Amino acid sequence: MIDVIITGDVLKTIAKAMVALVSEARFHFKEEGFHSRAVDPANVAMVIVEVPADGFEAYTVEAEEEEEVIGVDVNRVHDISKTIKSKELVEIKVEDSEMVVKFGSVQYSVQLIDPSAIRKEPKVPNLELPAKVVMDAGEFKKVIQAADKISDHVVFRSDDTGFYIEAKGDVDRIEFHMSEAELIEFNKAVARSMFSVEYLKEFVKVAGSGDLLTIYLGTNYPVRLVFDVCDGKAKVEYILAPRIEE
Amino acid sequence: MIDVIITGDVLKTIAKAMVALVSEARFHFKEEGFHSRAVDPANVAMVIVEVPADGFEAYTVEAEEEEEVIGVDVNRVHDISKTIKSKELVEIKVEDSEMVVKFGSVQYSVQLIDPSAIRKEPKVPNLELPAKVVMDAGEFKKVIQAADKISDHVVFRSDDTGFYIEAKGDVDRIEFHMSEAELIEFNKAVARSMFSVEYLKEFVKVAGSGDLLTIYLGTNYPVRLVFDVCDGKAKVEYILAPRIEE
Amino acid sequence: MIDVIITGDVLKTIAKAMVALVSEARFHFKEEGFHSRAVDPANVAMVIVEVPADGFEAYTVEAEEEEEVIGVDVNRVHDISKTIKSKELVEIKVEDSEMVVKFGSVQYSVQLIDPSAIRKEPKVPNLELPAKVVMDAGEFKKVIQAADKISDHVVFRSDDTGFYIEAKGDVDRIEFHMSEAELIEFNKAVARSMFSVEYLKEFVKVAGSGDLLTIYLGTNYPVRLVFDVCDGKAKVEYILAPRIEE
Repeated sequence: MIDVIITGDVLKTIAKAMVALVSEARFHFKEEGFHSRAVDPANVAMVIVEVPADGFEAYTVEAEEEEEVIGVDVNRVHDISKTIKSKELVEIKVEDSEMVVKFGSVQYSVQLIDPSAIRKEPKVPNLELPAKVVMDAGEFKKVIQAADKISDHVVFRSDDTGFYIEAKGDVDRIEFHMSEAELIEFNKAVARSMFSVEYLKEFVKVAGSGDLLTIYLGTNYPVRLVFDVCDGKAKVEYILAPRIEE
Repeated sequence: MIDVIITGDVLKTIAKAMVALVSEARFHFKEEGFHSRAVDPANVAMVIVEVPADGFEAYTVEAEEEEEVIGVDVNRVHDISKTIKSKELVEIKVEDSEMVVKFGSVQYSVQLIDPSAIRKEPKVPNLELPAKVVMDAGEFKKVIQAADKISDHVVFRSDDTGFYIEAKGDVDRIEFHMSEAELIEFNKAVARSMFSVEYLKEFVKVAGSGDLLTIYLGTNYPVRLVFDVCDGKAKVEYILAPRIEE
Repeated sequence: MIDVIITGDVLKTIAKAMVALVSEARFHFKEEGFHSRAVDPANVAMVIVEVPADGFEAYTVEAEEEEEVIGVDVNRVHDISKTIKSKELVEIKVEDSEMVVKFGSVQYSVQLIDPSAIRKEPKVPNLELPAKVVMDAGEFKKVIQAADKISDHVVFRSDDTGFYIEAKGDVDRIEFHMSEAELIEFNKAVARSMFSVEYLKEFVKVAGSGDLLTIYLGTNYPVRLVFDVCDGKAKVEYILAPRIEE
């Protein structure tokens, strides 16, 4: 039995985060909270969404086993979430083979998908990433959107002079630089990897100005981007494989 | 002789209301006020717009007969009305075969159409509709727009538990429900009819949050939707034929 | 050596003004300030942009000759300027064959173009234009945008009753009229010329409500439109050839 109440912003975030990579996903409800995890069809990126029980306004989950797992059409939930305001309260109930999403005087009933028909969740890889950068997620979003206009890949790099994002077009270049003093947290480790802007521009959609982003970076190695969103009520993590520079 | 002054919002409403169904219409100016009426080419819906003389800021109509009737290209008036602000004062004058629309330092001259070349206005049918529902028009608008995403028809129904709007997609459903306590007025009568969302989504364009909507509903029978808009200065009524459920 | 600081609104204005007519331009930096000038490929219109040194927040130009001249891809600068806020400070530095545009933590490097590869600037014609009209640029913009919907040319005319802008569609007409009392300045001279709306609608993009526009008008003769924008920090002048009325 699942019967929870959530604010619109958290539901919107869950939907946006998952829809960036997949169209169907398994939603897990445990006693301690909600999580979902998926890998994109090309196996280039992974998303992990977590909302602890206290990120909900009300959270009643009675699982027969350790958790309740449902299969969800993420596109549908994304469509519905667009019609909900950020501060609106939304009740989500799972009944028979339906997820009922209720807000105001409106209630949507969305058919569930058999979880076993959805691609198996990946294991979260254990990555050793030397550099740690904490910055405003809205600032990061702006840079990625600007880079998208001139190139299809960006370089993230860090050393003791700060953290850099660089993109090179055919004739133009863009460089973003923040020193340790301008960053919220920075361990000055040396790292450098290149990534696809196609993916990054989808990821930043969950981020707003004022949200915290923690970047874990290595050299020619995947990056972990951890977004703290909705005033800390939800966490969205992306792991993205590097593109190898020629 | 017609020479009236109207606020931008009222002119915009008249234009939006008519353009939902027709591209040409007869505008009637009587001593007691303005009205226009039209049926869409498919004979599925009728619109009736009324602005009493005191809904105008100034109203001078000197008719040779009981009323002055002009033929108007509704699309043109709609285009012009988009460039006018809601609170702007607009003078409308009919001179020779032109309608002159004047606001600020700008004046449009729109050629009139011979009223006899425009399809004859329908008689307003006398409908016995048991259920009466009064609610916020903005709320109704939101539900119709949501329903439009999953289906091309909706069911309106009422009984002593309240008023319902329901739409069923291939796999999903949406249900809107308001009890007597949540509605502004409700007579608890039993009724149920199905309607095309194509039409309804055009109708709701005249409505804003805070406007009053009165719904008169029967069973497998046309519905009357009466929108009180522009702070009561104008009334837009739609009559829509039902679609018969299989 | 060029190293200047400018507010976002001024950079946006320079970019918008030039991009209305050309995709490449020569930017001149003299001791007393910046200017650029260009003619469109059809030789119908000329643009002149001027920002005096005190329109910059900081202005360091050390020219070997009388001035520094660089060749600029105006489309690129326009794209970049869209990502900058009006009040943001922007540093522009010319280094080697690059123009570096820096704001916040972001820096764009744009390849320069050899100025000798860009079409030679025209001489500014010496025009005797009897009528002078000063009005709000935002008001002018609204009229041009309205005229654009019904015709591809407009007539500007003036006499002792005021200044007029007129457009005639197939069936409809629009007339804008301001008397001497409604205009900021007006010398009541008689003049009348017709112009292409295609050009005018591009020109008005630099203008906002509250900006000052001075119009110098003759009879079947080019018009000069001088826009004072960005709180007087920049001046954009367009000279547009007339279309001869049949």
